[in-house]
Amino acid sequence: MARVEGASVERGVNVPQSYRLVRRDARAERTVVRLRSGATFGGDEIAICAGPCGVESSQQLEEAARAVAAAGANVLRGGAYKPRTSPYSFQGLGEEGLKMLRHAGDRYGLGVVTEVMDPRDVERVVQYADMLQIGTRSMQNFPLLREAGATRTPVLLKRGFSATVQEWLLAAEYVLLGGNENVVLCERGVRSFDVVTRNMLDLAVVPLLEEMTHLPVIVDPSHALGIARLVPPIAAASIVAGAHGLIIEVHPDPANALSDGAQSLDFAQFEELMLRLAPLAALAGRRLPRRAVNDDGAAASRGYVASEPGENGSSDGAVRSSNKGVRLA
Amino acid sequence: MARVEGASVERGVNVPQSYRLVRRDARAERTVVRLRSGATFGGDEIAICAGPCGVESSQQLEEAARAVAAAGANVLRGGAYKPRTSPYSFQGLGEEGLKMLRHAGDRYGLGVVTEVMDPRDVERVVQYADMLQIGTRSMQNFPLLREAGATRTPVLLKRGFSATVQEWLLAAEYVLLGGNENVVLCERGVRSFDVVTRNMLDLAVVPLLEEMTHLPVIVDPSHALGIARLVPPIAAASIVAGAHGLIIEVHPDPANALSDGAQSLDFAQFEELMLRLAPLAALAGRRLPRRAVNDDGAAASRGYVASEPGENGSSDGAVRSSNKGVRLA
Amino acid sequence: MARVEGASVERGVNVPQSYRLVRRDARAERTVVRLRSGATFGGDEIAICAGPCGVESSQQLEEAARAVAAAGANVLRGGAYKPRTSPYSFQGLGEEGLKMLRHAGDRYGLGVVTEVMDPRDVERVVQYADMLQIGTRSMQNFPLLREAGATRTPVLLKRGFSATVQEWLLAAEYVLLGGNENVVLCERGVRSFDVVTRNMLDLAVVPLLEEMTHLPVIVDPSHALGIARLVPPIAAASIVAGAHGLIIEVHPDPANALSDGAQSLDFAQFEELMLRLAPLAALAGRRLPRRAVNDDGAAASRGYVASEPGENGSSDGAVRSSNKGVRLA
Amino acid sequence: MARVEGASVERGVNVPQSYRLVRRDARAERTVVRLRSGATFGGDEIAICAGPCGVESSQQLEEAARAVAAAGANVLRGGAYKPRTSPYSFQGLGEEGLKMLRHAGDRYGLGVVTEVMDPRDVERVVQYADMLQIGTRSMQNFPLLREAGATRTPVLLKRGFSATVQEWLLAAEYVLLGGNENVVLCERGVRSFDVVTRNMLDLAVVPLLEEMTHLPVIVDPSHALGIARLVPPIAAASIVAGAHGLIIEVHPDPANALSDGAQSLDFAQFEELMLRLAPLAALAGRRLPRRAVNDDGAAASRGYVASEPGENGSSDGAVRSSNKGVRLA
Repeated sequence: MARVEGASVERGVNVPQSYRLVRRDARAERTVVRLRSGATFGGDEIAICAGPCGVESSQQLEEAARAVAAAGANVLRGGAYKPRTSPYSFQGLGEEGLKMLRHAGDRYGLGVVTEVMDPRDVERVVQYADMLQIGTRSMQNFPLLREAGATRTPVLLKRGFSATVQEWLLAAEYVLLGGNENVVLCERGVRSFDVVTRNMLDLAVVPLLEEMTHLPVIVDPSHALGIARLVPPIAAASIVAGAHGLIIEVHPDPANALSDGAQSLDFAQFEELMLRLAPLAALAGRRLPRRAVNDDGAAASRGYVASEPGENGSSDGAVRSSNKGVRLA
Repeated sequence: MARVEGASVERGVNVPQSYRLVRRDARAERTVVRLRSGATFGGDEIAICAGPCGVESSQQLEEAARAVAAAGANVLRGGAYKPRTSPYSFQGLGEEGLKMLRHAGDRYGLGVVTEVMDPRDVERVVQYADMLQIGTRSMQNFPLLREAGATRTPVLLKRGFSATVQEWLLAAEYVLLGGNENVVLCERGVRSFDVVTRNMLDLAVVPLLEEMTHLPVIVDPSHALGIARLVPPIAAASIVAGAHGLIIEVHPDPANALSDGAQSLDFAQFEELMLRLAPLAALAGRRLPRRAVNDDGAAASRGYVASEPGENGSSDGAVRSSNKGVRLA
Repeated sequence: MARVEGASVERGVNVPQSYRLVRRDARAERTVVRLRSGATFGGDEIAICAGPCGVESSQQLEEAARAVAAAGANVLRGGAYKPRTSPYSFQGLGEEGLKMLRHAGDRYGLGVVTEVMDPRDVERVVQYADMLQIGTRSMQNFPLLREAGATRTPVLLKRGFSATVQEWLLAAEYVLLGGNENVVLCERGVRSFDVVTRNMLDLAVVPLLEEMTHLPVIVDPSHALGIARLVPPIAAASIVAGAHGLIIEVHPDPANALSDGAQSLDFAQFEELMLRLAPLAALAGRRLPRRAVNDDGAAASRGYVASEPGENGSSDGAVRSSNKGVRLA
Repeated sequence: MARVEGASVERGVNVPQSYRLVRRDARAERTVVRLRSGATFGGDEIAICAGPCGVESSQQLEEAARAVAAAGANVLRGGAYKPRTSPYSFQGLGEEGLKMLRHAGDRYGLGVVTEVMDPRDVERVVQYADMLQIGTRSMQNFPLLREAGATRTPVLLKRGFSATVQEWLLAAEYVLLGGNENVVLCERGVRSFDVVTRNMLDLAVVPLLEEMTHLPVIVDPSHALGIARLVPPIAAASIVAGAHGLIIEVHPDPANALSDGAQSLDFAQFEELMLRLAPLAALAGRRLPRRAVNDDGAAASRGYVASEPGENGSSDGAVRSSNKGVRLA
């Protein structure tokens, strides 16, 4: 009986030595993660990652990339390797999808973030992507974390379905321990007893993690909620709570998406959301990506991408000087 | 940050002084709760409470009482005041239901357990019932706990939907602190993320509570599971895990029950379950209620209730000498 | 097997007839709940309820009331009947506490909201309070809901520890069915697997309920988080997500509070929060209570309460014409 | 609003075509999974897997193997690749651990089950192990499931921390779809709000899965509970609920184990448990592994392993004729 009574469990992280690299006071400054494309997470600029759940076709992706860039996003999201609960669901286009992402990202001046599930795919994915997404099902896939830690490509580490904050930070510790300090945490909702939304967004972790770690934190309202109409208000709330960025599903035709259509914004909804976010970012002492606020009032990327469709031009060559990056164009 | 890291939360109950009455070592002996009918919880005899979810009519209840008594149950369950999620659902028959319960209990030699929700009803309910059930929604209804603590009628305290074991024990502490030591705890499943069963039965609390408290613990597989077919194997497992009793929904016609039909056993299923339980109880060093094991192999209560139907005879008069009890017959 | 496969569970509320009064389309207009003090929930003005967890003394409450009024709150919160997990914890001052609340509310022009746990206390509490709080443990205390429904005093209905949105709406339905249409819903966090915060705030219900019901929804970040430092950013986020109000614990000396000190703001923190909220409310097309925005830039209530300390003056007499209300001053 | 109301979520599995291979009626007979060592899961014999959490040394493992074999276990468990929340915890001995497992298994006539986390390790692990354990963190590691599905080595698929039964079955579907039909499901507790036990054992899935799938189901009470004293009663209850086997942590010196000592039985406790299980298995119409019931009342394996310590003899050559197996001795 004494053992039952005397036992205690950790609230927050009470074994500091177990996460010596990610803890807030392990560094003098907060970490700013910078993609090859120039997008940053953790600084004054809020990162806006947007795009379809899955890469379905070149046309779908190009349309989405153009639209989200025009609205002011600076990172393109899209799944080429899709973790699916059922083996009979659409599993993604694989390397073809990666190529499409790279092409669309270059064409519209967007960084590219995409999920990797298999440690054997990391080497291939970093050739195309600017940021490796480690999904909720993989948060404690330790071989994958180690493989990502061996690269220098930024990592977007989503919280596990029912991961405690401590477990999440220790997963990040695996990546940092491998030498890769470019980790961004992403709250995407956790399992709850109520099925009225797809998951339950735990927004309080945003200010909590601000104290506990020097790593940036972003929010994925799309997967958290599963209902497109709820995404804009919660995206706005996330910025106010201190999130360093958002990752949002946007699809040219949500009703016919191969996955996650119910939670995807269409282009008009996304553009409206961006307009809503701008003054909130300003109140928080931050700003949306620069492309969103050019002089003529139009979305900046229209001017940013000088090249015509079909030309494959990319203006971010200088940024792409990373030893990991390859030019596809 | 230090505050986050340093905080800790209790595993089990690490503030022993906060539950000084219910803790195991507060008494030399384990508590045996005895109903006026003679049924006991916590001793060698396993209590078997059975009956319909709600009292629907005199006929329904009489049929159920006869059948569960014949199969060997020693306590009749049935709701007269029904807590219902929707105000438009059947809310119970109130005092009429209580009278039916008392009548059926007396006729078939069964103790009566029934739920009370309102502290103003406690005085009325103890006039009819041998045991007050405090339901899952009321586990932290402190005025109700205090009112139950002011009686000497045994209390069946169900675990709250998402109550920790510590909260549950402290709810029991309220009753004991009022002077009523006759508390039986009832695990009935908790909320979980999976809707495949109605709730998630936390069977491990049975041996855990055996260490933590001197109070008896029983299991309600019907509400935990919500699916009648799963009740028998889990009821059997509960006995083996150490439960001092079971409370099981049994209905003459589950398909047409006004509430909880999907989880109610019919008479044949209940009788079969009792036969399955007998050898398991023996292996656990316990026994089913005596009535179940009479010589001729028939259910004992056929002989036990000497009176003919309609005669209203009750053989438990002596036991009913409690100052709270009233004879209705 | 067919039964397992074929069964389904409701996402959101798929039995519309079961909540015919609270559903969004049951009324042409959204409900605006107005307290006798003039404070409103559901209109253009955001309600700010603030004060200590428990009423501890006349002095503590007066100080708190003066401070929160000065910072712009329009409703005073404070518990006189405290639901406590342990029977050995401070249980509240009872009717003495109610008198102190009424006095402090009148003196500083604040409405008063306080919890009622026992249906037998409803009549007494409505004599002092402008709004009945039904706490998380009582959300499905149906006798209490019915008693509150029989009054015309506004009700603040907190979400249960692990209540689904559907169960919460149906609890509100009980109150409306009794004839009391003045119900405000309050999200206060739910149980989760992670103990890093006290509960998990489910902020998405704010925009979700906006669609599902005509009733106003407010947020309690103090109980949701349990950590004072996290309250301001999440309070701000709640307004942006669409909450019609906030209820926040503020204490003159959080470190020495008799309950919930760890989650209580001190006066300076609360004042700072109010300044942070004002522009966010404006962006949302709403405003903080009028008292907060008077001409000289100082907190409005300094001018609002013309009476000197000790005078017991109250300027809300006209509003207090409710048949339930009594003047104490 | 209509979309919210009309949406529904699956209880159980209501899209039968999405798990066409694992569903109960996909086969006429229930699946019996047979290891090269002769141990079976799903037939009349209950599989008893026992051993340390992690392989720590040759001596530790030999001692454990001898003891569990003597007590009647027929499969040796032990981790060579350890998934650990913290990168600073003991991570396992890797291939050295695999060799020790194979050696100890052969010496004491035990099948060997061990975890594989990395799809790149599958080929190596199947050379040593008789059964691949896919752990709770890997239940939706789809590349790993596919790799395991490409072997013909039996797979022990643990339920994810917060996986629904449907997700679990679909994970098994990935393995079967790869051509490997030898899957055993293992319930090991899920995340809950109460930290009084390590996880919450969902015992009801045992009879539920009996209806839903033809695959065998076993229970891991050690990880579910995290407290050694609770393991025996819950192990016993699991057999009565219908489990086809158990996997139990047993360590020569639990107090000094490198991992999971608090939940490990010592040898005497395990032996006592086996004696307790035998009559329960008989009542369930099953039996413990044959080795446990030899004539002289001693543990069968004393006679089964004819070879003396140090001789490395193994008598299960015939069973090891699998095309994947390699003889190490």
